[in-house]
Amino acid sequence: MPFPTTDLSRLIHPRSIALVGASDRASSIGERTLTNLVTHSQFAGDVYLVNPGKTEIRGLRCWPDVASLPDTPDVAVVVVPASGVLEVLEQCAARGVRFAIVLSSGFGEAGADGERAQERMQAIARQSGMRVYGPNCPGLTNVNARLGLTFSPSFRHDLVKGPIGLATQGGGLGRNVMQAMERGIGIGLWASTGNEVDLQVADFIHYMADAPDIKVIATLLEGIKDGARFAAAVQRAAANGKPVVALKVGRSEYGRRAAQSHTASLTGSAEVNSAVFRQLGVIEVHDIDELVDTAWLLSRAMPDGRDALAIYCSSGGTSALTADAVGAEGLTLATFAPDTTETLRASLPDYAAIGNPVDTTAVVLSDATVVEKTLGAVASDPNVGLVVVPITLDYGETTTRMARNIVNAQRATATPIVPIWMSDRLGEGYRVLVEHGFAPPRSVNKAVAAIRRWTDYGAWRGRHVGPQPLRLPTVVSSAGDTAMATRALAEADAKRRLREAGIALLPCEVAASADEAVRIAAAIGYPVVAKIASADIVHKSDIGGVRVGLADAGAVQHAWHAIVAAAREHRPDAAIDGVLIEKMAPAGGMELMIGVTRDPVFGHMLTFGLGGIHVEVLRDVSRRMLPLGPGDAAAMISEVRAYPLLAGTRGRAPADLSALQALLEQVSAFVCANAGWIEEMDLNPVWVDVVAQAGGRGGAMPLDAVIVARESPGQSA
Amino acid sequence: MPFPTTDLSRLIHPRSIALVGASDRASSIGERTLTNLVTHSQFAGDVYLVNPGKTEIRGLRCWPDVASLPDTPDVAVVVVPASGVLEVLEQCAARGVRFAIVLSSGFGEAGADGERAQERMQAIARQSGMRVYGPNCPGLTNVNARLGLTFSPSFRHDLVKGPIGLATQGGGLGRNVMQAMERGIGIGLWASTGNEVDLQVADFIHYMADAPDIKVIATLLEGIKDGARFAAAVQRAAANGKPVVALKVGRSEYGRRAAQSHTASLTGSAEVNSAVFRQLGVIEVHDIDELVDTAWLLSRAMPDGRDALAIYCSSGGTSALTADAVGAEGLTLATFAPDTTETLRASLPDYAAIGNPVDTTAVVLSDATVVEKTLGAVASDPNVGLVVVPITLDYGETTTRMARNIVNAQRATATPIVPIWMSDRLGEGYRVLVEHGFAPPRSVNKAVAAIRRWTDYGAWRGRHVGPQPLRLPTVVSSAGDTAMATRALAEADAKRRLREAGIALLPCEVAASADEAVRIAAAIGYPVVAKIASADIVHKSDIGGVRVGLADAGAVQHAWHAIVAAAREHRPDAAIDGVLIEKMAPAGGMELMIGVTRDPVFGHMLTFGLGGIHVEVLRDVSRRMLPLGPGDAAAMISEVRAYPLLAGTRGRAPADLSALQALLEQVSAFVCANAGWIEEMDLNPVWVDVVAQAGGRGGAMPLDAVIVARESPGQSA
Repeated sequence: MPFPTTDLSRLIHPRSIALVGASDRASSIGERTLTNLVTHSQFAGDVYLVNPGKTEIRGLRCWPDVASLPDTPDVAVVVVPASGVLEVLEQCAARGVRFAIVLSSGFGEAGADGERAQERMQAIARQSGMRVYGPNCPGLTNVNARLGLTFSPSFRHDLVKGPIGLATQGGGLGRNVMQAMERGIGIGLWASTGNEVDLQVADFIHYMADAPDIKVIATLLEGIKDGARFAAAVQRAAANGKPVVALKVGRSEYGRRAAQSHTASLTGSAEVNSAVFRQLGVIEVHDIDELVDTAWLLSRAMPDGRDALAIYCSSGGTSALTADAVGAEGLTLATFAPDTTETLRASLPDYAAIGNPVDTTAVVLSDATVVEKTLGAVASDPNVGLVVVPITLDYGETTTRMARNIVNAQRATATPIVPIWMSDRLGEGYRVLVEHGFAPPRSVNKAVAAIRRWTDYGAWRGRHVGPQPLRLPTVVSSAGDTAMATRALAEADAKRRLREAGIALLPCEVAASADEAVRIAAAIGYPVVAKIASADIVHKSDIGGVRVGLADAGAVQHAWHAIVAAAREHRPDAAIDGVLIEKMAPAGGMELMIGVTRDPVFGHMLTFGLGGIHVEVLRDVSRRMLPLGPGDAAAMISEVRAYPLLAGTRGRAPADLSALQALLEQVSAFVCANAGWIEEMDLNPVWVDVVAQAGGRGGAMPLDAVIVARESPGQSA
Repeated sequence: MPFPTTDLSRLIHPRSIALVGASDRASSIGERTLTNLVTHSQFAGDVYLVNPGKTEIRGLRCWPDVASLPDTPDVAVVVVPASGVLEVLEQCAARGVRFAIVLSSGFGEAGADGERAQERMQAIARQSGMRVYGPNCPGLTNVNARLGLTFSPSFRHDLVKGPIGLATQGGGLGRNVMQAMERGIGIGLWASTGNEVDLQVADFIHYMADAPDIKVIATLLEGIKDGARFAAAVQRAAANGKPVVALKVGRSEYGRRAAQSHTASLTGSAEVNSAVFRQLGVIEVHDIDELVDTAWLLSRAMPDGRDALAIYCSSGGTSALTADAVGAEGLTLATFAPDTTETLRASLPDYAAIGNPVDTTAVVLSDATVVEKTLGAVASDPNVGLVVVPITLDYGETTTRMARNIVNAQRATATPIVPIWMSDRLGEGYRVLVEHGFAPPRSVNKAVAAIRRWTDYGAWRGRHVGPQPLRLPTVVSSAGDTAMATRALAEADAKRRLREAGIALLPCEVAASADEAVRIAAAIGYPVVAKIASADIVHKSDIGGVRVGLADAGAVQHAWHAIVAAAREHRPDAAIDGVLIEKMAPAGGMELMIGVTRDPVFGHMLTFGLGGIHVEVLRDVSRRMLPLGPGDAAAMISEVRAYPLLAGTRGRAPADLSALQALLEQVSAFVCANAGWIEEMDLNPVWVDVVAQAGGRGGAMPLDAVIVARESPGQSA
């Protein structure tokens, strides 16, 4: 493992807790934390209050410092003012405390002094092995165990236990998710990690991946500090069959800037983040309500591969609107089994629509028996994976009856029934649904978007969770190394390394003289291409450094001299190795590009696209973190919009996709094997044969290769 | 005008009303309608009850039929069973009643008999001039005048007057919008037109465009029956400065099918609908809550061109999330004026963020003065067009105070302040905002999406509303004509017609013999292209019917014979006119396509795109209803994703965009002048010169032209 993991179970389920800075001054952070701990929690372990100015608070004994405690607590909750925090942490570390939660603020968010204090906290943690949570955070809320290590006056309302684990950085947005308990969402554990000097959101995702009371992990991220730790955590969750739903700020420049100024953490590129999330099966959402809707749906039922839906509704317009959204999201409506159709036909009036969507018409709503029977039939249909029940209106009693019918129908089946509460009037029917844990989404599109994410996750899980083990990415971050020097390898050097890694390339060799060029060309076979060979000249064409279609010795001779002369004229400073003589690329085929960059958070990223305008103008590319996992290369190829061009369309012959896939995998392996020194790579163009082409023998190979290396000892590898 | 308009003011504001089918049987449609009219309305005019079996109901006199009424009512509300409706309508028509509202159901939605009855209703309306509303609808709800011509038991709750006019087909979804009154939305008038035998949604949009109490029109459409009527109505609204916000079902095949089975109306193509909406300034939304959010924002304040926003928030995370959404929607954050920055600096704590977004931090929330002062400063900043105030949490009193601060700050400025209520806890603060008409959206993305539509509408309005009059589209619908025969014109014929319309084309002429071909080629100048000339052969290349690059007389002679022979061999049935000899297209330039189709709802639609893969694989096209209005051609060109290729990018020379724009306008004029017989047109490829190209003289012209004509007398025009 590239970094230490720590078992957080004694932080989440401590046997004993010290509250350092406990107070009885009303509304002080020390008093509020104490109240949460002793009044609103149901904690059976030992509680030690630390306050040098008191002998007791609320009848509980106070100790003057951590050193004098009768026993070493599992967790120390630190609420002293910022100026006293470091000393307390040193005492805790000396005493052998395993976890310190620092609620106090006034650190990294408050300026340079605070940042220095945070560096000290990190050093204490590193040296002692004590893990530090915070500072500048509202604390840890264990709803399932009814334990609040937090100063939040809202803790006493955090009563809805449940299978969702929530890991956030900032407290405000996290608290917003907690208030979704109001519509019946059960959140078992909330970690809000604040300035993350040591423990990060990723560590709690990792914990929740193993925690038996958590089924679904929801996370809010402003920045990801450590890509490898994050990737390992979400892979752990995937391996344990637990979905991770993530809202990551930073889709736009405004968002990146605001998040950076709020948390002082790198936010990374949105394209890279989304690609990594997709690759690792992290379900990305773009708003808090989407986070809640999606996590809750996953906690109610895991998608089982039957992803065809049914719509059951009593309004024709709503039924059409919902069907429209289902189609627009690319979801499928189920075809009912004959038994279902028979039940619907026998039970509903003639003018009802008994296909899918089912439109019962409003008339039947007053008949509880009919609704339960028909909704039940739809929900137990073997072709149906989920039933959407959009409720257009709050019509008082009728609607309450409908809500009860939904509750009863759900009791009889494992297929999830998803009511949508569309009205702004939140009456008794709404409360019935909330009380029974349906947490109805409030709009058709929000519900259908959550369902789309639910089925997408099911499909990802089907492909990735199972006997095939997940591979841990080799994240080599360049964060902090921004000033590091780099240099481009000469083309011949770059190609030699690729060839040594088993990647097919056209034969080529550097000619130091015109005569040597002719000998090389004869050995390779005409026609050939001649290119200036100089590590100092990357854009060769721009200075007249490339000649193509050289068909005989005379042409090669002439080209050698012309190219060298052009290079000397335009770039008198460049060190020239000679002229690279290379076999001319086969006629036909298609041109693509493969690029590698190093993301500061997630390390090496592979980019694939068709060349030219597709990349430059249409920005039509797919991305993956390296190494590629099983299926990733094929997925990358099929994800570009121009995929039909590769696959063959309208009489066009298809490109050799298996050769292309193999090349992507070879590039991945090459970069990972040389991860220490490769900073960037640009294979552009990459030639791929068109399979049905006359004389085409298949294959894919880079025609040009630029590798940018770190100027570091590792590079000579 | 292509169709009669009718002034609906006596329908919306009648002086007298007859209720035909009035009843005192509890919960019958006749009783509910009567109760709404006499108990829950405040109607000062005359009410006549018609019921042949009663002499009085609730103390009001009953007449046996319409004929016997003492006076002719402006409106007859018909609630008798379906079987009696036609007779009542005949009586109403005979009596000279101007408007009949048929609430009864059992017509088109119930089968073939019902459809025949609807045809009779249409005939009665046509012959008498009486306008018919319905059948199968909940009726008409005039909230501002407190008049309910409806059987809905909900009418008594429809109490929030306001500037939104709502026009829907189905009743369920419309009623859902009405329940948005629960969060403070004021809806002055709701028309729900049901089966639309005569009056359509478009007629009410037209009415609302002129109604002084309506500022914003919201509409829900399952199908548009008459494209021209709809276009005229929304243009009327635009001319009067009133935005139209529309939710149209039919984005997906599922939606189209469901809407069709629900309303039996054509739903049209989603691409065409969206293109027409964009062209006419109709603001398209995709869900009911989006309809409500957008309409309400527009009713609160009209965008004035200052579209830069401010974000004012007390949570760093929420502030970053909102900034992110603002950026992702392509909106702009304002730069504050120095005075604003000064006020923020002086009033907020050091650790607050005083840029944009403003993050006050939660600490200041308890200080009413600071919030009002700083929020006021931001909202009155001259650079700020709108202030978003996301409220992360319901913290009880603190949040209520924040809500009051927003209310007070709004009183001091015309710049709209948009609070977002993000929590699922709807406490006192929420109620304060609702009571003061803020109707807070419930999620960041929903709010920002509404704001994006608001600023987009402002931009559209800036371009289209003003001295330049709007042009009425020439919609020639082919609905109902699906079996009509069509034929393709011969290329030479098609090109002759285009040339006569002033469109530049390469010189060409049909040669009936090889010798004539040589004479034509000499006159045109070599090189030339030869193509089979036959109206029966559209795909000329497929049968070897095209030869290009013919450089001399010998080549032309040979080509003539080869082409004719190939055509006779492959298509012995085809009538051959000879061979078309055409000047070879200039070298260089780019290839595009221009297409025309006839939409069943909106008539002729123009499609533009780059040729080849851009259209066939990437489906990268823009569309407009014809005729093009000012600015439409330029907008069509810039809307395609590949626009950078046309505009010149990365050292590429730009295409001659002004020639291209002129060509699009000429095509529009040509099609409109020949709208009666042109069914389809395909100019593909269209050649456009690249301006900076050596020797390039600019210009744009079709190289090939297929015109498909209706087989009808008009075609010979």
